[in-house]
Amino acid sequence: MRVSQLFAPTLRETPAEAEVVSHKLMLRAGLIRKAAGGVYSYLPLAWRVLKKIETIVREEMDAKGGQELSMPIIQPAEMWQETGRWSVYGDEMFRLKDRHNRNFCLGPTHEEMITTIVRGDVRSYRQLPLMLYQIQNKYRDEIRPRFGLMRGREFIMKDAYSFDRDEAGLDVNYNKMYDAYTRVFNRCGLTFRAVEADSGAIGGSGSHEFMVIADSGEAGIVYCGDCDYAANVEKAELHPISAPAEERLPLTEKDTPDMKSISEVSHYLEVSPEKTIKTLAFRTDTGAVVLALVRGDHEVNEIKLLNKVGCIQLEMANEEAISNVIGSQAGYIGPVGIESSKDIIIVADTSVMNMHNAVCGANKKDTHYINVNPLRDFTPSTVTDIRLIQANDPCPRCGAPVKTARGIEVGQVFKLFTKYSTSLQATFIDDGGKEKPMVMGCYGIGVSRTMAAAIEQNNDENGIIWPVPIAPFHAIVIPISNKDQAQMALAEKIYNELNEAGFEALFDDRNERPGVKFKDADLIGYPIKITIGPKAIDEDQIEVKARRTGETFYFNHEEYVKGIRELLEKL
Amino acid sequence: MRVSQLFAPTLRETPAEAEVVSHKLMLRAGLIRKAAGGVYSYLPLAWRVLKKIETIVREEMDAKGGQELSMPIIQPAEMWQETGRWSVYGDEMFRLKDRHNRNFCLGPTHEEMITTIVRGDVRSYRQLPLMLYQIQNKYRDEIRPRFGLMRGREFIMKDAYSFDRDEAGLDVNYNKMYDAYTRVFNRCGLTFRAVEADSGAIGGSGSHEFMVIADSGEAGIVYCGDCDYAANVEKAELHPISAPAEERLPLTEKDTPDMKSISEVSHYLEVSPEKTIKTLAFRTDTGAVVLALVRGDHEVNEIKLLNKVGCIQLEMANEEAISNVIGSQAGYIGPVGIESSKDIIIVADTSVMNMHNAVCGANKKDTHYINVNPLRDFTPSTVTDIRLIQANDPCPRCGAPVKTARGIEVGQVFKLFTKYSTSLQATFIDDGGKEKPMVMGCYGIGVSRTMAAAIEQNNDENGIIWPVPIAPFHAIVIPISNKDQAQMALAEKIYNELNEAGFEALFDDRNERPGVKFKDADLIGYPIKITIGPKAIDEDQIEVKARRTGETFYFNHEEYVKGIRELLEKL
Repeated sequence: MRVSQLFAPTLRETPAEAEVVSHKLMLRAGLIRKAAGGVYSYLPLAWRVLKKIETIVREEMDAKGGQELSMPIIQPAEMWQETGRWSVYGDEMFRLKDRHNRNFCLGPTHEEMITTIVRGDVRSYRQLPLMLYQIQNKYRDEIRPRFGLMRGREFIMKDAYSFDRDEAGLDVNYNKMYDAYTRVFNRCGLTFRAVEADSGAIGGSGSHEFMVIADSGEAGIVYCGDCDYAANVEKAELHPISAPAEERLPLTEKDTPDMKSISEVSHYLEVSPEKTIKTLAFRTDTGAVVLALVRGDHEVNEIKLLNKVGCIQLEMANEEAISNVIGSQAGYIGPVGIESSKDIIIVADTSVMNMHNAVCGANKKDTHYINVNPLRDFTPSTVTDIRLIQANDPCPRCGAPVKTARGIEVGQVFKLFTKYSTSLQATFIDDGGKEKPMVMGCYGIGVSRTMAAAIEQNNDENGIIWPVPIAPFHAIVIPISNKDQAQMALAEKIYNELNEAGFEALFDDRNERPGVKFKDADLIGYPIKITIGPKAIDEDQIEVKARRTGETFYFNHEEYVKGIRELLEKL
Repeated sequence: MRVSQLFAPTLRETPAEAEVVSHKLMLRAGLIRKAAGGVYSYLPLAWRVLKKIETIVREEMDAKGGQELSMPIIQPAEMWQETGRWSVYGDEMFRLKDRHNRNFCLGPTHEEMITTIVRGDVRSYRQLPLMLYQIQNKYRDEIRPRFGLMRGREFIMKDAYSFDRDEAGLDVNYNKMYDAYTRVFNRCGLTFRAVEADSGAIGGSGSHEFMVIADSGEAGIVYCGDCDYAANVEKAELHPISAPAEERLPLTEKDTPDMKSISEVSHYLEVSPEKTIKTLAFRTDTGAVVLALVRGDHEVNEIKLLNKVGCIQLEMANEEAISNVIGSQAGYIGPVGIESSKDIIIVADTSVMNMHNAVCGANKKDTHYINVNPLRDFTPSTVTDIRLIQANDPCPRCGAPVKTARGIEVGQVFKLFTKYSTSLQATFIDDGGKEKPMVMGCYGIGVSRTMAAAIEQNNDENGIIWPVPIAPFHAIVIPISNKDQAQMALAEKIYNELNEAGFEALFDDRNERPGVKFKDADLIGYPIKITIGPKAIDEDQIEVKARRTGETFYFNHEEYVKGIRELLEKL
């Protein structure tokens, strides 16, 4: 294609709305345009990238026996009411009524729909297993859509669903998908990690997330350098930390005027933070208050806490709740003297129970206790692992210190077991004639988010650096002077030869200064830039520059196609 | 693929909801499943067909310089308010609010969105022309969704938009799209006609529809056997018919007790229908009454009438309006004595003005006039062509009698000129430095409807007969007995060989009776069925049957791939 005809409107300035680098670069490189908050048009270059990602996804799904179909985006409310998710989804679900006043939503996901289809047409174990998938727009009305395609309200997803006779079958399909995802992200040219993920209310070890490693990632991950353990920090389990035995001293109140934070208190009382108990108050969706206790130098893992409490939502309790329910004041909360009940749930991290003569808030302004001893001075409702893992914590598998990184979640595989087949009565007759619920898994890839993640991971101050397999074009041919007929003719010849050789090449035939063309090429990030100037004409030296490495090569006319082919394989 | 693993749930019975053959067969052949009225899931076989149609569309769009992009389905209200279509679309538009109470619709089309994008990024004549397209779900909340995919509420469309400097440029793009559409439907293996179409308020000869010829088609078309004229009946122009001169006789009332229809009146008064004037009363969206006059043996073309009157909607006037506004009664309406005004518009077909001594209603129960003479006895507000063309009417081009057919509209090309660029201020600076609105065209293909139309045109009592280029698979290999290891081994070998030779073949490895397999194969409509029975094993005679022609061929193992290749080219 000729650049003069390509609709790739680049911008010199970064629109003020963009916060993260992928968002900035996609706007500047003419890849996307905003229609509304979290809602974007994909312009031709972005669409080429997305089609390439989709093709890779499709090939890998098909290779594992997946069958592609396409389900409606507008979904009737009834099936969501059957599973109870019509109410659970809350404001995050886009809802609408048709002209007959019937309720619909825009599918945020398709478990209800696929299970409804399969229950209608699958009766016998002989029709199982099934792996069905689609690639389609999904809709979530995020409170704060942001970061461009990273957290949109309309986004492209590949969602797959497996149906099996039993858990052994689910394991087979789950592992196939795990392999397929590994292949997909490898083929996209991305650096990623598969990590153990929280599987919410279902529990068990039934979920992995695929994280593209990038500093801008919203997710924290930990991994072990010694063994192959890797997990989302939300999921990472921790063994309790023990502390040397001490003689229990008597519980004593201490004045701690205006000392609210752990660091203030420990400094003032001259104890290390490891000897303090941090108490955080949360409120559940049912109105109960949860006091979460961790060691002063630890953080609460809210996801673990939520799963342990078994509620749908948790938020920090406000001053009013702290004062009314606990009779305390923020900054001085502690478990001593609090009776657990259905309204007050005290959850202590396992490591807290190993502490001796600790410090904690005394539920009264400007006052802390010292010499607090668990069980003697307070009794939790639950003792369990609610700690957020940190760098250098011991690996839960091998004990070596873990490392942390930031990641962008681009895929997740998930064992659903019989959650939806039970609520939607998707049963089959097994080979013994018995009716059983199908055993399900679901598997998602954020296709548009993968494009954004690729940019987060691959860019420099000049623009995007596309991994070759998902680059919108492989190469751009730029004549230095549009006035020079010999340069124009050679540039066009090379452009044609490259396309004939199976590459996707562009010819920048615009009547622009070379600087403008080079800047656009670097901004958009084509892997290879071929410059046709006097050296090419006079000396048969074609300049080939690799966007990723910055290296420049010179090939003569006989060799350049081979040279570019070899270069693309290395980039 | 093995049929035992394919999710293609065929049904023996036709679901009662299905009225037209494509709907019945798509349900029975396991191609689609209903989620709600006019909302369907496309199961794997249908999705394969749709992908093939999409690929053909995409290749032909790209060949004409089209650039694919993808715009949002959820569209903010503001841009629709700018063009005024937020109110025009009425109940047909799906509307929703986000969590911040902002108004959105589900795109029924994308003129507003594409024009908004282009106006933001195109400033100069050097960036034009542009041809942008997408393939995407569209949404229209039809009053009566029906006929399966023929008139759905969620459907797949390819929509393209061209932007040009001037009308000459628009003509070039329009003709490119006309050619591309011709190639698309030819490549899909469909029998179709491009016909002149109504272009509504814009007028002119700026639209063609592509009609798949099928008796079940909702659209009437006419075409000339002598010249290449073809048009939607809604659009087809007609020259006035003259009548031999007669001496004008005096206007006279006649009793016509209970005679309301043209045939009753003409029979009772012993005049031919050609000597009667039919008067139909309509009501516009603004409340005016329109009296439409045509010769008794003619029909009113409501689309022509609507365009001539210049209103948005027309519906038949009810008894009340007839009695209140005209002071008449249904069955006895006529133009004599009616004064045209802003509330009563009398539109006479040109042929009516050539009539002499005609019969028409006298606006009083059981009474007609005879010897009615236009201009002497009544004066229309407008005289124009409002007649619906019929078989054997003279061709508007060459005068030869026209033929009629039914068609399914699968594509439309349309010159928008500056309608949207003016209302949305999409302007550019021309080469003389002057600001001008871009000149636009829009071009749609109903992708899912094309699949349905293909079935309407290609089926028999046993099921679908897919045109080869869009068949979900080319061939199915059926062993007669699953118990016979030699048959199973040969069938699998042939299945593998066909796939290796580049065909898409299925292997029906199910443990079912051969009758069930044959019935399913015919129902789904694979172009070629290969039966492996004793003859194949013992005599090296492989049975190959063509679904379309019913012909059976026998090939030996050396020849069958070549034989099938030749056969597929002919089907």
